[in-house]
Amino acid sequence: MLAYSGGLDTSVILKWLQTAYGAEVVTFTADLGQGEELGPARKKAEMLGIKPENIFIEDLREEFVRDYVYPMFRANALYEGVYLLGTSIARPLIGKRQIEIAEQVGADAVCHGATGKGNDQVRFELAYYANNPDIKVIAPWREWDLNSRTKLIEFAEQYQIPIAKDKRGEAPFSVDANLLHSSSEGKILEDPNVEPHVDVFQRTISPEAAPDKPTIIEIGFEKGDAVSLDGKPLTPAQMLTALNALGRDNGIGRVDLVENRFVGMKSRGIYETPGGTILYAAHRAIESITVDRGAMHLKDELMPKYAELVYYGFWFSPEREMLQVAIDKSQECVTGTVRLKLYKGNVIVIGRASPYSLYSQDLVTFEDDHGAYDQKDAAGFIRLQALRLRTLAMRKRKTGK
Amino acid sequence: MLAYSGGLDTSVILKWLQTAYGAEVVTFTADLGQGEELGPARKKAEMLGIKPENIFIEDLREEFVRDYVYPMFRANALYEGVYLLGTSIARPLIGKRQIEIAEQVGADAVCHGATGKGNDQVRFELAYYANNPDIKVIAPWREWDLNSRTKLIEFAEQYQIPIAKDKRGEAPFSVDANLLHSSSEGKILEDPNVEPHVDVFQRTISPEAAPDKPTIIEIGFEKGDAVSLDGKPLTPAQMLTALNALGRDNGIGRVDLVENRFVGMKSRGIYETPGGTILYAAHRAIESITVDRGAMHLKDELMPKYAELVYYGFWFSPEREMLQVAIDKSQECVTGTVRLKLYKGNVIVIGRASPYSLYSQDLVTFEDDHGAYDQKDAAGFIRLQALRLRTLAMRKRKTGK
Amino acid sequence: MLAYSGGLDTSVILKWLQTAYGAEVVTFTADLGQGEELGPARKKAEMLGIKPENIFIEDLREEFVRDYVYPMFRANALYEGVYLLGTSIARPLIGKRQIEIAEQVGADAVCHGATGKGNDQVRFELAYYANNPDIKVIAPWREWDLNSRTKLIEFAEQYQIPIAKDKRGEAPFSVDANLLHSSSEGKILEDPNVEPHVDVFQRTISPEAAPDKPTIIEIGFEKGDAVSLDGKPLTPAQMLTALNALGRDNGIGRVDLVENRFVGMKSRGIYETPGGTILYAAHRAIESITVDRGAMHLKDELMPKYAELVYYGFWFSPEREMLQVAIDKSQECVTGTVRLKLYKGNVIVIGRASPYSLYSQDLVTFEDDHGAYDQKDAAGFIRLQALRLRTLAMRKRKTGK
Amino acid sequence: MLAYSGGLDTSVILKWLQTAYGAEVVTFTADLGQGEELGPARKKAEMLGIKPENIFIEDLREEFVRDYVYPMFRANALYEGVYLLGTSIARPLIGKRQIEIAEQVGADAVCHGATGKGNDQVRFELAYYANNPDIKVIAPWREWDLNSRTKLIEFAEQYQIPIAKDKRGEAPFSVDANLLHSSSEGKILEDPNVEPHVDVFQRTISPEAAPDKPTIIEIGFEKGDAVSLDGKPLTPAQMLTALNALGRDNGIGRVDLVENRFVGMKSRGIYETPGGTILYAAHRAIESITVDRGAMHLKDELMPKYAELVYYGFWFSPEREMLQVAIDKSQECVTGTVRLKLYKGNVIVIGRASPYSLYSQDLVTFEDDHGAYDQKDAAGFIRLQALRLRTLAMRKRKTGK
Repeated sequence: MLAYSGGLDTSVILKWLQTAYGAEVVTFTADLGQGEELGPARKKAEMLGIKPENIFIEDLREEFVRDYVYPMFRANALYEGVYLLGTSIARPLIGKRQIEIAEQVGADAVCHGATGKGNDQVRFELAYYANNPDIKVIAPWREWDLNSRTKLIEFAEQYQIPIAKDKRGEAPFSVDANLLHSSSEGKILEDPNVEPHVDVFQRTISPEAAPDKPTIIEIGFEKGDAVSLDGKPLTPAQMLTALNALGRDNGIGRVDLVENRFVGMKSRGIYETPGGTILYAAHRAIESITVDRGAMHLKDELMPKYAELVYYGFWFSPEREMLQVAIDKSQECVTGTVRLKLYKGNVIVIGRASPYSLYSQDLVTFEDDHGAYDQKDAAGFIRLQALRLRTLAMRKRKTGK
Repeated sequence: MLAYSGGLDTSVILKWLQTAYGAEVVTFTADLGQGEELGPARKKAEMLGIKPENIFIEDLREEFVRDYVYPMFRANALYEGVYLLGTSIARPLIGKRQIEIAEQVGADAVCHGATGKGNDQVRFELAYYANNPDIKVIAPWREWDLNSRTKLIEFAEQYQIPIAKDKRGEAPFSVDANLLHSSSEGKILEDPNVEPHVDVFQRTISPEAAPDKPTIIEIGFEKGDAVSLDGKPLTPAQMLTALNALGRDNGIGRVDLVENRFVGMKSRGIYETPGGTILYAAHRAIESITVDRGAMHLKDELMPKYAELVYYGFWFSPEREMLQVAIDKSQECVTGTVRLKLYKGNVIVIGRASPYSLYSQDLVTFEDDHGAYDQKDAAGFIRLQALRLRTLAMRKRKTGK
Repeated sequence: MLAYSGGLDTSVILKWLQTAYGAEVVTFTADLGQGEELGPARKKAEMLGIKPENIFIEDLREEFVRDYVYPMFRANALYEGVYLLGTSIARPLIGKRQIEIAEQVGADAVCHGATGKGNDQVRFELAYYANNPDIKVIAPWREWDLNSRTKLIEFAEQYQIPIAKDKRGEAPFSVDANLLHSSSEGKILEDPNVEPHVDVFQRTISPEAAPDKPTIIEIGFEKGDAVSLDGKPLTPAQMLTALNALGRDNGIGRVDLVENRFVGMKSRGIYETPGGTILYAAHRAIESITVDRGAMHLKDELMPKYAELVYYGFWFSPEREMLQVAIDKSQECVTGTVRLKLYKGNVIVIGRASPYSLYSQDLVTFEDDHGAYDQKDAAGFIRLQALRLRTLAMRKRKTGK
Repeated sequence: MLAYSGGLDTSVILKWLQTAYGAEVVTFTADLGQGEELGPARKKAEMLGIKPENIFIEDLREEFVRDYVYPMFRANALYEGVYLLGTSIARPLIGKRQIEIAEQVGADAVCHGATGKGNDQVRFELAYYANNPDIKVIAPWREWDLNSRTKLIEFAEQYQIPIAKDKRGEAPFSVDANLLHSSSEGKILEDPNVEPHVDVFQRTISPEAAPDKPTIIEIGFEKGDAVSLDGKPLTPAQMLTALNALGRDNGIGRVDLVENRFVGMKSRGIYETPGGTILYAAHRAIESITVDRGAMHLKDELMPKYAELVYYGFWFSPEREMLQVAIDKSQECVTGTVRLKLYKGNVIVIGRASPYSLYSQDLVTFEDDHGAYDQKDAAGFIRLQALRLRTLAMRKRKTGK
């Protein structure tokens, strides 16, 4: 049961499974919004000898956004302060579906095309094992000897696997994509002191190239999830698709970073998350008027742990589920609308409103508040907050320490 | 000992202290880079009857940035995900200096001009008490009955306190400023669903008005602190001044937010932190290649607590000091340079380099790594990471839970 | 609506409310297992002129243990490493019921007898406000001038309030009790360097006085809650009652501590929590075989925050509720039995078993494990765990830092 | 460079290194207070053909307690709520010394005798790699085929390695010991539902066997470290030795637990930490009067992470060092004395005193406090603490949520 993209690498893997393992291969190709047609994957699989009943192609876009992306955005998850986890969040779903189909067809092993240096191997395999503790996992890149592009191409030629022209030479960098983001890593991007060439970017125009006029949008939220755009209800996948288009056109969501991989080294990545970047800002804004301070600060304290779990591949872990129910609990009143100005890379919040708003003009006003708040209360509040600091200061006076 | 700005409000307080308390008032006016001249404050104090030896005016800009702003930026402190704590960080220093001068001149009480609804009263007074446990604190806004603008103006007129023309009517919003930021709050800004008028902004031009050509800069860091700009060494205050100018000209650092005050209500603020916004991005970038993953993730987990402490006014608390030594420990190798592109509100990292870089092209490369990393290790790594998830999955199979 | 114990202090408060406020007083007396009969409280209230329909007496023991004590024990909550929160956990329930009855009878204010120096005033009043934002709160100890025992006694005599003999002199210390614990504080206990006199203890015999023969018991758990003792099903209050008797007889559950109050000072308390101490140990033991490591470590990290919230009185806060759902999520399989040896102050776990056990003899055995675990996996696991430490060590070699 | 105990297993390893690797073996035997004489280890090493200059025997007891045990006790580290980390804390020191001696003698590989299922292999090897990134590690138990006791004995016989009589049969369980604790694991202890036989315990008598009369002791602390016993100054190792004797004689420090190993499975251990258990209670007690609430709660929140790092073997990691400096910062005034009653398994705090005490009878007293604390302050304190809860309650009234 192979996670099959239809590309050169997974086609080589397919053939290698047939030859090295003598396996009857079942392929699974998922549409997570990577932006490629799936028809060719079916044809190619057939051409490589896969029986039609062993070819599984599924559109998982709605499930992906609804059950993976949205819960994660409720948490405001940012890995190491900057990364919106676009690749990380896609792997658990693929892994889980692979296991489900494997059980359905009676496959005894699952296989993915991730390399032995990256995070994705971990994410895939933790998803496999969490959903089937006894499954056999095949990770060709850690096993075979096709460990150079030349050998891979030779193997492909030997077995008549079609090779796109631009794959003959070394690809200049490695790409992953889904409805949430595109990532580019490796090769010409490996020096973190060199700015990425403009060709690296795939799903956003540059801020410089974006229109001189801002775009104003309004996102409607319900229980922490975006449900409407400019008043029009959208499903999760429709929403992310629409926000991606808006982000792309306004040069939004590019990140150039050096991150710490779970397998222990630092790597440099160029990520584009146009819709997700807008969604993140909007979600923070609607939370700012609907979530209580105690809940918000707890969320902020839990977030780095949550993001780490997603990044490391522990989506199907009890601790991620514990954090999720806590986070979801905080979202019960995160309902309302946020207006945003999109302009040349900027996402600017210009308004937020909610029937569940905790913001009170009476409480905060510099004007007469009609008794909502007694300023004299602050004196006692401060005196007791200060008590332990005063006690420390008295000790210092007395002992010098 | 009054924290005296020279403005209308603190002039009224000064006179009120003389009349209501019969106090001999000592004034303290600090230059924290708020952008106003201090000469007029001296003249006004003299005019209100303060003896020259009781007028203290000090330039604290270097101390402010070096001992307060820089340590806080080492922590990447963001309150509620967005606020760079520009007002919060200035209060402890003012409060501490007030106490020091009060002790020097033998004053028995300190006084500030913060209102009873805000955070600043807490920050001032915690700083007072932490530095002198027995000090008497006078907070006029919580005590007097001049609780409307009309009464305040009447009082000012009664005592011949000069009133600037624009202060006669209600000020349209309230402003605070120092070298790190300007804030605007209250009055016409109180509805969080209304975009702030363009006149609110004081130290940045808008992204739209910024130049069409990006500005490229390089910031040099040493042990977590910015020490040079485009190769030229700068003191902390010089650095922040220079980054403020760069930020202002490129429309950088505007934030419109709703935050949770320590005294319990939500408030809306418009903040401008041009230099700080650049510094934050640059610091994260130099950390990304010089700080180990374990240290970085711990920092990220501690940050919300640290930011909360600064926001709440607990700068002089043992727990803030504990966090600070931990954070400072992590910065020992945060030395190197970061190149940034500033463009219409965007701060884009385009390069980072360090003699202490932990980034290794050998480890990360898709190419031959000459044995730096054995991909087979990943198999065992994943198998053991998965062991507990597999055990859970077996339980689920057996028990259904 | 007065929280009325029937004792001298709340009787004085009752009369004071009638005289100082001219109030029609409604009394509420709750049985939380403090071990006193409630009949006298009714009689005394009547004697002080309360109409029968204004006297509310309720047995809340089951609700107390089921909805407050048990959820808290699921969290393994310990304040400052030692205190099982016996007083803290009772206040929210009393406060909530007071508000409910106040609304039922149309009372416009609630009143409690806690002093102005302690935590209980905060816990009561936060519970009031969280359940009725507009309620008026009367805290006599912060308001009246009966601030010495002499004055209190005089007031009682003036209004013919019966005074127990031992109350005439200064009580030697202050006591609070409910089904979970007894606390003794203040007066002769105020010096933390003096061992408490043997008379202080009320619901436990000393370890020295306990039997020379251990008692063996078995507690059955279901989803984190104790449900049976030696095979016999018990309700929550029955369980705690039974464990209290076992604890008392074996000298278990005494704690002598100095704690940090929410209002800012340190205080010394002598606590007895016989049943709770047994329950805590048993719960940790059943968790040790049924809860996954990731979930357990997350629980342990969240616990101090949870305990702080309960101690400070924030039971009815969104952040406590967020933590609770996370904790409850972790308890789904915490089902099984724990055997314990009780002996002269010791609670010794001697066995734990569960149908949901995650403990696997196959995995852990020093003997042949039939392939459950491949020791070679550990090599790769360690190599990748070490990768970042090796990178740091290389930097140190190169740069000296 | 072999970590050599002189026992059967490491003697077999020694010979195996000579035969399988053809290695010139250097042995390192450390005295960490395991209670065995080191003379025999030297003789045995010589007998197995090790040159005298290649035999290293060191007494590391003082360094062990001073630089490892004491810093850890400053943190009040408890793994999973119960385990005082007695085995974990010894490994980093052994590993570090092995690397230092290896560099001194020019050894190119280090070797330990830990099995492939446990935590110790991780702890040793992380210590190796953190101190020498390029070192070669040999872990015989993961490599060789002597994977049954029979084969091991055969190998020993083949090479004339002396075999103690009781080692011929299966050892009934596996033991580790140092000055801080003894652990017993495996074999007859593998069923967590069976009480350990009385013979398992090695360094404590049972509570039942302990004297009927309590022992009273006084421990003096300086900056968080125990420095004197009953007024007599002791070095760290002397202190732990003395407390071990006191604990042993009073039946103190036995723990029977199921813990979660870093390598992924649960295991059952019987630990004896007599002196450490006393030290833990005493340290908490002296902290309770000398450490501020904010610092204490931060310590408590950081502790689980710290304990996890020590347990997992990350002593030499930047994040452990960050936590350590934060913890050490909190200990500056943890100076004073604690009196304890030791009685049949119980460690009972009966007094604490310090020149740096923050406990103030004036603040806490039920009596007249001479103005140290104004009870009216509490009203404002509570009102502002309640403000957000009241705002939530108003929302609930209005919206039902």
